[in-house]
Amino acid sequence: MNWKIYLSGEIHTHWRDELKLGANEANLKVEFLGPETDHDLSDNTGANILGCEDKKFWHDHKGAKINSIRIRRNIEDAHIVIVKFGDKYKQWNAAFDAGYAAAKGKSLIVMHNDDNQHALKEIDATALAVVQDNHQVIEILKYVTKE
Amino acid sequence: MNWKIYLSGEIHTHWRDELKLGANEANLKVEFLGPETDHDLSDNTGANILGCEDKKFWHDHKGAKINSIRIRRNIEDAHIVIVKFGDKYKQWNAAFDAGYAAAKGKSLIVMHNDDNQHALKEIDATALAVVQDNHQVIEILKYVTKE
Amino acid sequence: MNWKIYLSGEIHTHWRDELKLGANEANLKVEFLGPETDHDLSDNTGANILGCEDKKFWHDHKGAKINSIRIRRNIEDAHIVIVKFGDKYKQWNAAFDAGYAAAKGKSLIVMHNDDNQHALKEIDATALAVVQDNHQVIEILKYVTKE
Amino acid sequence: MNWKIYLSGEIHTHWRDELKLGANEANLKVEFLGPETDHDLSDNTGANILGCEDKKFWHDHKGAKINSIRIRRNIEDAHIVIVKFGDKYKQWNAAFDAGYAAAKGKSLIVMHNDDNQHALKEIDATALAVVQDNHQVIEILKYVTKE
Amino acid sequence: MNWKIYLSGEIHTHWRDELKLGANEANLKVEFLGPETDHDLSDNTGANILGCEDKKFWHDHKGAKINSIRIRRNIEDAHIVIVKFGDKYKQWNAAFDAGYAAAKGKSLIVMHNDDNQHALKEIDATALAVVQDNHQVIEILKYVTKE
Amino acid sequence: MNWKIYLSGEIHTHWRDELKLGANEANLKVEFLGPETDHDLSDNTGANILGCEDKKFWHDHKGAKINSIRIRRNIEDAHIVIVKFGDKYKQWNAAFDAGYAAAKGKSLIVMHNDDNQHALKEIDATALAVVQDNHQVIEILKYVTKE
Amino acid sequence: MNWKIYLSGEIHTHWRDELKLGANEANLKVEFLGPETDHDLSDNTGANILGCEDKKFWHDHKGAKINSIRIRRNIEDAHIVIVKFGDKYKQWNAAFDAGYAAAKGKSLIVMHNDDNQHALKEIDATALAVVQDNHQVIEILKYVTKE
Amino acid sequence: MNWKIYLSGEIHTHWRDELKLGANEANLKVEFLGPETDHDLSDNTGANILGCEDKKFWHDHKGAKINSIRIRRNIEDAHIVIVKFGDKYKQWNAAFDAGYAAAKGKSLIVMHNDDNQHALKEIDATALAVVQDNHQVIEILKYVTKE
Repeated sequence: MNWKIYLSGEIHTHWRDELKLGANEANLKVEFLGPETDHDLSDNTGANILGCEDKKFWHDHKGAKINSIRIRRNIEDAHIVIVKFGDKYKQWNAAFDAGYAAAKGKSLIVMHNDDNQHALKEIDATALAVVQDNHQVIEILKYVTKE
Repeated sequence: MNWKIYLSGEIHTHWRDELKLGANEANLKVEFLGPETDHDLSDNTGANILGCEDKKFWHDHKGAKINSIRIRRNIEDAHIVIVKFGDKYKQWNAAFDAGYAAAKGKSLIVMHNDDNQHALKEIDATALAVVQDNHQVIEILKYVTKE
Repeated sequence: MNWKIYLSGEIHTHWRDELKLGANEANLKVEFLGPETDHDLSDNTGANILGCEDKKFWHDHKGAKINSIRIRRNIEDAHIVIVKFGDKYKQWNAAFDAGYAAAKGKSLIVMHNDDNQHALKEIDATALAVVQDNHQVIEILKYVTKE
Repeated sequence: MNWKIYLSGEIHTHWRDELKLGANEANLKVEFLGPETDHDLSDNTGANILGCEDKKFWHDHKGAKINSIRIRRNIEDAHIVIVKFGDKYKQWNAAFDAGYAAAKGKSLIVMHNDDNQHALKEIDATALAVVQDNHQVIEILKYVTKE
Repeated sequence: MNWKIYLSGEIHTHWRDELKLGANEANLKVEFLGPETDHDLSDNTGANILGCEDKKFWHDHKGAKINSIRIRRNIEDAHIVIVKFGDKYKQWNAAFDAGYAAAKGKSLIVMHNDDNQHALKEIDATALAVVQDNHQVIEILKYVTKE
Repeated sequence: MNWKIYLSGEIHTHWRDELKLGANEANLKVEFLGPETDHDLSDNTGANILGCEDKKFWHDHKGAKINSIRIRRNIEDAHIVIVKFGDKYKQWNAAFDAGYAAAKGKSLIVMHNDDNQHALKEIDATALAVVQDNHQVIEILKYVTKE
Repeated sequence: MNWKIYLSGEIHTHWRDELKLGANEANLKVEFLGPETDHDLSDNTGANILGCEDKKFWHDHKGAKINSIRIRRNIEDAHIVIVKFGDKYKQWNAAFDAGYAAAKGKSLIVMHNDDNQHALKEIDATALAVVQDNHQVIEILKYVTKE
Repeated sequence: MNWKIYLSGEIHTHWRDELKLGANEANLKVEFLGPETDHDLSDNTGANILGCEDKKFWHDHKGAKINSIRIRRNIEDAHIVIVKFGDKYKQWNAAFDAGYAAAKGKSLIVMHNDDNQHALKEIDATALAVVQDNHQVIEILKYVTKE
């Protein structure tokens, strides 16, 4: 039985690659899904494909909608949604994904360090595991996907 | 036909009261729902009722879960969910509510000023209206609830 | 038992008012719902409330989204959705409402004259009744709402 | 991860074939679904298989229902529904498909030229992308299906 | 708490009236729903309202669809669906209602005499009670609706 | 794209085998599902596996429930449910399957001869095709499954 | 806004009455629902209404099914399901109700003393609050139902 | 057609292995799913992966949540859920799984000996088969999975 895992949140570090590497080494039967992680490409995809806008709002609007085609399908397909909150940016889209996944009944794992604990308490309270690093994710995946 | 409106987000200003006042003056057939807005009471409700915890994580965990009893029901009952992003705190719970509401098919209205536009683009892209102030909300409610 | 009836489609004639009158005369326990029928107001509601746009596309976009807050709730609340196709305009939004209502499992009644029969065959095939005028609608409502 | 794309709307041009060709050249992992595009065959399938009818209404009715077996399943299977509005015919079935797909939570892409912009504003407002030609569709598919 | 009870099946005896009488005498907080029970009126409602058909099939088709507007809503509203199988007619519509109600998760009560036991075994196996007469129905309703 | 077709109803003729043969000859990409068609085995499966019962009612009850494990899954998996009404037995379970399938949103095809037309009008009105023989079923399957 | 609270579990103490009293004194806008709490009546309702059975299994079976008509509707109507595990009996039906409520997305509150903590860990992990007594329930209800 | 079977309940005997062996010998097209059956590992998985807790409640809480990632997905994937009640422990999690599976519309098979019959009557009443041993399960699986 294969597991699909959606990796939401932080896009400026290599946590997704490291996770894939770890899962590979452990021979886990998992498939990782995720958003476009090239920041510029993601921000400008609407304008790139559908044409420029004078207003930043509509520029972003068109891009966010194209990105949502990918994100929505991936979350709906996923058995587990892992959301990593890092230490840069507002990351409201990560919290939005967490809320979306929770309402769809997905198993939620949240990753963050202690500094953000209080601010993330509502999201942590919905999660089935709150972790601090990739190592713990790999251990959970090993455990729950074992046959 | 009565409309139920859930007011998520910012709890340290009086935007909810002003909105209720405005709706009242306009004789709108709306009922406003919302979370507990007493910050301390909300943070400590778990410990207050269910007993203290040594660890901040579990202290917050118990409180967030009790709060979610109210929030989940209110969002599920609501026809419109309005989420206000202010200029204080991380507000990840507001973004989480937005994601939850979106996945439940609720009509979403997002309120924020221009500074947060780019960071909120994914949430704005899901919203049926992006507003800057209560006045615009009242106008929308007048328009959509007219019989 | 009260019935909620959503009246979609044609907005430049008085069919909604006549239907309400007929239902009233027949003492039917029905509540009619519908979109904003003031054409200009409906077209410009986005710009009126949320501010002007240079591009017609975004002008219309903002208006259509605010209108959808009302339309979606009404269709979801309705027990019966009646869609009237008249002889003016493209009326794609009427057909869209019919598809939306069908997918939500609503009982669909379609009203149109013979000229449009072939072009509406897919929508007619989903309907539980295809009528030509208000009189037939009133007769159906009398029949199905009788206690 | 394979994507299923339902192509609704215009049947008298070759946009479906061109799209398949483009997707093929770009090695996209997509599977295109669509309705019967032989106009006569589609119109007469009910009579052909189930027997003739004196009335055009029932002739069309039987055909539309058989076609809906295919269309409904395809839309329900699809991750993305693309609806093309051309410059011929009423195309109410295309708008109906769009409404049906929207209510089922499908990602909607609408294709049309500027002439129809105002008349399609409600459908555009539900779409995650509004495009003018196949080239833009291919770019979106490249972007969202990239692994 | 009020209970809605849909009474499906046999229309040529007075079991519905007797049940209402019994429920009334017992002061039960129940509301009974049901189909049109005037056999001729029910059979001809399509033709009466929408016009005659040469073929019996379409005559019946139009009537059955108008009847289904009422039946579907009532079953969907009901907390309990009671289906009575009598000793006349094929009663396939009663069995169809039972299947529809079962798939919608309704509590099903089936009423029939011993002669039909074997033929109704699949429907009985889905029911939460199999009764022989109105008296037993009243006793069940007294028991489950008690506050 | 493979289609799953559930064949409900009549079990004392060979219509299922003939249909499979026809589909095979036409190279249709369909998989046929169906209930246990050995009448005695089906009737006695409860007692055979779970032990005898003194009362016929419970004997049948246990069997019908085991049969429903298979039937329910098959109907839920199916894209099309075909229900054949023959000229023997009460066939209430066939009508029940039709109602169950309709409520689950399955495409329904009903097969019967003219004698049963009036008695099956409610079920026919829900069907997307009403056929008289296997030949027509094969033609429909050819048409809707064509790629 | 009124809240519906289903009280599952222990039936041989007076915790339900005490809870109602407490809620009444606190003027809470809550309505309590619950199963039949007369143990003998509950056990024998099947036989009492539908007739005796020789086998205990079928005696219990008929009773449990009639009870489920009430329990299922109540849980589905409830905003909060409170399950009390006492120190007598196996109480598997209480745990079954908890699982049923969890799968239906209900807010779950579990009441038990420390002795049962380890054995109830899976149910506690799904609950939004784990309490020891009625006093804590009243405090939670005061908090979440406040307007 | 492959069947997925979730095996819930008793973990201190070898009934799962025996069942797999029996299914294998009978060449059944079934895939068995189940929870972690190493009792210690299951109890301590939360602490092992996410770190120790001073309180037993939170120790268990973290473990139960990680286990639920596996259990929930497996039950949701399963066509049949088999719950075995043995003669040790409280087994409330088994009853919880049964309630969860029932609410998700899964076919439920319950295994227990006569001693627990009365205490399990509510769960048995929801089951499609009540068995005493693995042999009966294999016979049921043979019967319902036959092609």
